[in-house]
Amino acid sequence: MSLNTFGHLFRVTTWGESHGPAIGCTVDGCPPGVRLSEADLQPWLDRRKPGTSKFTTQRQEADEVRILSGVFEGVTTGTPIALMIENTDQRSKDYSNIAQAFRPGHADITYHQKYGVRDYRGGGRSSARETASRVAAGGVARAMLAQMLPGLRITGYMVQMGPRGIDRARVDLDTIGNNPFWCPDPVAASDWAVYLDELRLSHNSVGAVIEVVAEGVPAGLGAPLYGKLDSDLAAAMMSINAVKAVEIGDGMAAATLTGVENADEIRMGAQGPEFLSNHAGGILGGISSGQPVVCRFAVKPTSSILTPRRTINATGEEIDLITKGRHDPCVGIRAVPVGEAMMALVLADHLLLDRGQTGGTRGVIG
Amino acid sequence: MSLNTFGHLFRVTTWGESHGPAIGCTVDGCPPGVRLSEADLQPWLDRRKPGTSKFTTQRQEADEVRILSGVFEGVTTGTPIALMIENTDQRSKDYSNIAQAFRPGHADITYHQKYGVRDYRGGGRSSARETASRVAAGGVARAMLAQMLPGLRITGYMVQMGPRGIDRARVDLDTIGNNPFWCPDPVAASDWAVYLDELRLSHNSVGAVIEVVAEGVPAGLGAPLYGKLDSDLAAAMMSINAVKAVEIGDGMAAATLTGVENADEIRMGAQGPEFLSNHAGGILGGISSGQPVVCRFAVKPTSSILTPRRTINATGEEIDLITKGRHDPCVGIRAVPVGEAMMALVLADHLLLDRGQTGGTRGVIG
Amino acid sequence: MSLNTFGHLFRVTTWGESHGPAIGCTVDGCPPGVRLSEADLQPWLDRRKPGTSKFTTQRQEADEVRILSGVFEGVTTGTPIALMIENTDQRSKDYSNIAQAFRPGHADITYHQKYGVRDYRGGGRSSARETASRVAAGGVARAMLAQMLPGLRITGYMVQMGPRGIDRARVDLDTIGNNPFWCPDPVAASDWAVYLDELRLSHNSVGAVIEVVAEGVPAGLGAPLYGKLDSDLAAAMMSINAVKAVEIGDGMAAATLTGVENADEIRMGAQGPEFLSNHAGGILGGISSGQPVVCRFAVKPTSSILTPRRTINATGEEIDLITKGRHDPCVGIRAVPVGEAMMALVLADHLLLDRGQTGGTRGVIG
Amino acid sequence: MSLNTFGHLFRVTTWGESHGPAIGCTVDGCPPGVRLSEADLQPWLDRRKPGTSKFTTQRQEADEVRILSGVFEGVTTGTPIALMIENTDQRSKDYSNIAQAFRPGHADITYHQKYGVRDYRGGGRSSARETASRVAAGGVARAMLAQMLPGLRITGYMVQMGPRGIDRARVDLDTIGNNPFWCPDPVAASDWAVYLDELRLSHNSVGAVIEVVAEGVPAGLGAPLYGKLDSDLAAAMMSINAVKAVEIGDGMAAATLTGVENADEIRMGAQGPEFLSNHAGGILGGISSGQPVVCRFAVKPTSSILTPRRTINATGEEIDLITKGRHDPCVGIRAVPVGEAMMALVLADHLLLDRGQTGGTRGVIG
Repeated sequence: MSLNTFGHLFRVTTWGESHGPAIGCTVDGCPPGVRLSEADLQPWLDRRKPGTSKFTTQRQEADEVRILSGVFEGVTTGTPIALMIENTDQRSKDYSNIAQAFRPGHADITYHQKYGVRDYRGGGRSSARETASRVAAGGVARAMLAQMLPGLRITGYMVQMGPRGIDRARVDLDTIGNNPFWCPDPVAASDWAVYLDELRLSHNSVGAVIEVVAEGVPAGLGAPLYGKLDSDLAAAMMSINAVKAVEIGDGMAAATLTGVENADEIRMGAQGPEFLSNHAGGILGGISSGQPVVCRFAVKPTSSILTPRRTINATGEEIDLITKGRHDPCVGIRAVPVGEAMMALVLADHLLLDRGQTGGTRGVIG
Repeated sequence: MSLNTFGHLFRVTTWGESHGPAIGCTVDGCPPGVRLSEADLQPWLDRRKPGTSKFTTQRQEADEVRILSGVFEGVTTGTPIALMIENTDQRSKDYSNIAQAFRPGHADITYHQKYGVRDYRGGGRSSARETASRVAAGGVARAMLAQMLPGLRITGYMVQMGPRGIDRARVDLDTIGNNPFWCPDPVAASDWAVYLDELRLSHNSVGAVIEVVAEGVPAGLGAPLYGKLDSDLAAAMMSINAVKAVEIGDGMAAATLTGVENADEIRMGAQGPEFLSNHAGGILGGISSGQPVVCRFAVKPTSSILTPRRTINATGEEIDLITKGRHDPCVGIRAVPVGEAMMALVLADHLLLDRGQTGGTRGVIG
Repeated sequence: MSLNTFGHLFRVTTWGESHGPAIGCTVDGCPPGVRLSEADLQPWLDRRKPGTSKFTTQRQEADEVRILSGVFEGVTTGTPIALMIENTDQRSKDYSNIAQAFRPGHADITYHQKYGVRDYRGGGRSSARETASRVAAGGVARAMLAQMLPGLRITGYMVQMGPRGIDRARVDLDTIGNNPFWCPDPVAASDWAVYLDELRLSHNSVGAVIEVVAEGVPAGLGAPLYGKLDSDLAAAMMSINAVKAVEIGDGMAAATLTGVENADEIRMGAQGPEFLSNHAGGILGGISSGQPVVCRFAVKPTSSILTPRRTINATGEEIDLITKGRHDPCVGIRAVPVGEAMMALVLADHLLLDRGQTGGTRGVIG
Repeated sequence: MSLNTFGHLFRVTTWGESHGPAIGCTVDGCPPGVRLSEADLQPWLDRRKPGTSKFTTQRQEADEVRILSGVFEGVTTGTPIALMIENTDQRSKDYSNIAQAFRPGHADITYHQKYGVRDYRGGGRSSARETASRVAAGGVARAMLAQMLPGLRITGYMVQMGPRGIDRARVDLDTIGNNPFWCPDPVAASDWAVYLDELRLSHNSVGAVIEVVAEGVPAGLGAPLYGKLDSDLAAAMMSINAVKAVEIGDGMAAATLTGVENADEIRMGAQGPEFLSNHAGGILGGISSGQPVVCRFAVKPTSSILTPRRTINATGEEIDLITKGRHDPCVGIRAVPVGEAMMALVLADHLLLDRGQTGGTRGVIG
């Protein structure tokens, strides 16, 4: 949370541009003794990688991750874990026309204004390509969490494409992997396929809403008042490219409720407290309650489209611009594994933070 | 962004419980030479303070702020500025019935689980009373910003109470102070008065949506990728009590747009780039574009209501609980000055961060 | 380690000037459930407080510390602990002659150059008075350490005054409190009394070397490579007013040794590894070894003396200046409890950091 | 200053083990527009690299650094700069005998105790090999400083080998590069050559003292009280392998002075204040005074020697151990460029920090 570093104790520093030789990150603060190899990370990267359907960019990247440090004889050593992914399918010439022009909706103009110089090839540092590093780092977090919180399960899926939402009554999480949208509602998935194809062929794109749920989070993670779990989740999700909003639990809809409706009433179950609803999304006062942690975020439509848009260039000329290159018609699709990775990173960090301060002991109920 | 500290260079560390002797904060990193006295801070605190209408808690707190350090002969010295506000109207006995019980929707149960011990009086550390410290710190940020960015204007207002939104066509920002809701739509304000009175008398409460707009923010504040301006704004707003969602620009609605619709097209104006729309809310790639920065957040309904709700206590007994005390029927009202304060803090911090890295020079256009 | 905040997880933010209304600090990150009251902190402050012998400043300060938050019913709650000490015996008029003049050896000129403005009364922020806040915070750290590491013992003492060192053969730690110098060698203490009295009466002052030893530190605290235990100790001690050097173990003398001499050989004892010497000062590779942690630091002579020294003032005039006021002829004396406090803070912080990352488990030997 | 990250705004995160595939670092927060290429970094690495004389390890590493991100068309872009150096001459089999044994004076035992697992090959993470990353990062800092502070000059040299110091009267900084010791006294250099050769042939090693001086540092860098320039320098130097003490200005000798002697008197020169001496080492109250910043540190003798030393192994057996491999008989030699790099990093960081808070304006004198 300091320029290119995320996290307090479990910290990730990412680097790299879309068309540089490689991208990567350093994961610092991981506990020792976590079983880890490249084979543990690759599956997560494969879920995010481009070119897997006609609904994502056609850039072909193997996204093979290498572990350069911090792992010895199959386990983490407690020292920094450097991860590197080579860029292999850059087509920088696609971008020559935007070297001096500012694509509407893109960071081109703000990078230019702030830094005076930018690597424009493929969006440079502002490219969604950076999220591969997050997914790799998230894989390390998942390996750690698998050992420390074996009951934890993080699940991300798309709940809305453009104005078209899923029907919660039809949700079957087991079907998420059966369609190219990480959609848990098979009917919606079919609908979206037609809808997105039309948009794509008409040189347009569309936004999406992603939901990420973490089940099995113990009570007690997070801390008042600026290290709250929801505050860090909000920062984490908002840091993903193209995200414009983050919700916890009922999110924006919480504003429409009365206090009587919103109260998540509590009963005593066999294993401890049981909540009768989860408007709070598993977080009260910034601290996890033991309920599923529920987070949603909105992804704006891909700004890179083949439809001309009015803009200016660095010399101040007014121009019409179309953005060539190989782009996702709905960048929200590939944001699903990224959102999961950020959830894993936040939980890993807060698990260590909580253990640092409290030792992981919990106040007794009953 | 580390337990009770917020900010990178302009940093605020808050402390204090609702019914302790005092609350306060330390503002570290403020530039020297900023004109500052208690009289500069008090007006902001007066806007947040309780007991100003029947729609806020009847607790009577003068909320008088004292500057204990960091200011000499009327200007800041560059050393830490300690601010203290004494608590004077605690009625801790109101809370004896919740010493061992967990109010639904409150942090009682999560503090108990995490820490094993909590100051239950008035919500202790999780009370909205802490936000007075934020407003005081925000006053310091505003004093600094007034000198460094004289054209900056931060305006917060309520755009929705429960399901009842304002009509954007009727908005007149000059009327915000004319009603007890910081509502910019006079018709909505009248409607809300009747609506909230009914809820209050029926022992209920309701949520709200607040919008905070900063005009006059220069291009170039914020930084990739975890120190983004929107990422820090999301963390800042989500750290406010009862907030469940944060939106930048079009927010959740960005998901419903196509790329053609969402592109904020750019023309060249006399003063530099001009955007034809502001779907982005003034932030592209985490960096301010020079357009107004637009942020919204949803506040859940006050959980402390006089309607009984089912819950448990620390011994595991199932009970029905009503929350006495003096509570806001719509805590969103007092969140307006708090949201403004957080906006001021984030902008002050990023202004210094940007000056540190770039010296404040900007890339030329035209 | 960020302007006025020290520590990673157990963090202290101090504020206040020598002649302001009060000084204080906020301790953030302390575990919950630590028994704590003002009576636990006051004895440490009493050891540092001025006016207790003719060898320290004659300023009379009760140095009564108040706990304003974070403690409830006698135990810490895990929320920030605000500590405040009122200034009661300021004599600011003593300082009118240095309002615009720069005392040689003081921070007057550098504060002026950096900030353009400074609270000159009593040295303002650069006064050793700030160290009272460190001692108070150190008291919180000690209370925490007493519960988590009952075998820990931190002992500070003066080993050299001016060129006059102690004789290690005569050291008796039980005699430290029997003289006004925290001197463990009774003969040296008598010698120093005469020596310092002469210096004091001749309007002079002198430097000192302080040693702080922590016994009972478990193996495993500290971390490569920039969060090393010795690196943080060096920062901690160097941050104390007037300190010009920090040594760990043999310190500067380590340079004179050969590798054969310097090797702390290891044998196997009943309780685990036993080292045959402690040239390393209990730290190897930045991580504690289980041996006593040994740290020394040099304190320069008090710069405020009644002997005139050549200097300039803010208008650039060359003047001769004597520094009135009530000053310590050997400020190293009162640095002893401050050094102990910094040791306690560093150990508390690293204990939590280590618990966060490793859970406190240790690699087995034997 | 957080595990493997150093710095506040100009931040370096290093990674890598001695015998892993590579080592490297990420430099975050560098201003944009700094001219930088690998050719700017390589000369600094060449000064540190092993195998350049019989007095350093015979490991042959080209130490070729690659810039993987953050530089575009020859200038920095303001985004993170990833640097990587491949390891090419590992001889891990040399270390099989210490896989389970703890070399006295080494971090073997403390890493084992803390983490339970370690990469023992060549010292793994605790190897001085990591300092190549510091030198590379320092090269980036130097490039930035060359543009922002063209008058700055950082010079490191060895002032003592074992008990044999230089004669300050014979110092000629232009001769530093003429001998394999970075010794500024040609007579001492000749003496050391004989002395160290004897030690080397007798399977021994020896310590050293390094001095690093920065001339041309502007007044005003550093900040009270935990972000002091000297506090950060102390942390920086103490974080280097084998360093056991850090001195600023007169250092330990400051303790022997009286206040009359220690006062650096001030006169008014043509360009501003002029100090008549520099006992303070260019830092007053944690803030640079405009005088040369003078820092010294002691390096202990190389622990890896061919003379057998008593120790234990992981099973608790008592053994005698000699350390094979290719080691520096005086590791202090290669610490010279490392000390310079750390000075550059601290100054770069504080230059940005100061610009962030004060804008770089200075209080006027005269």
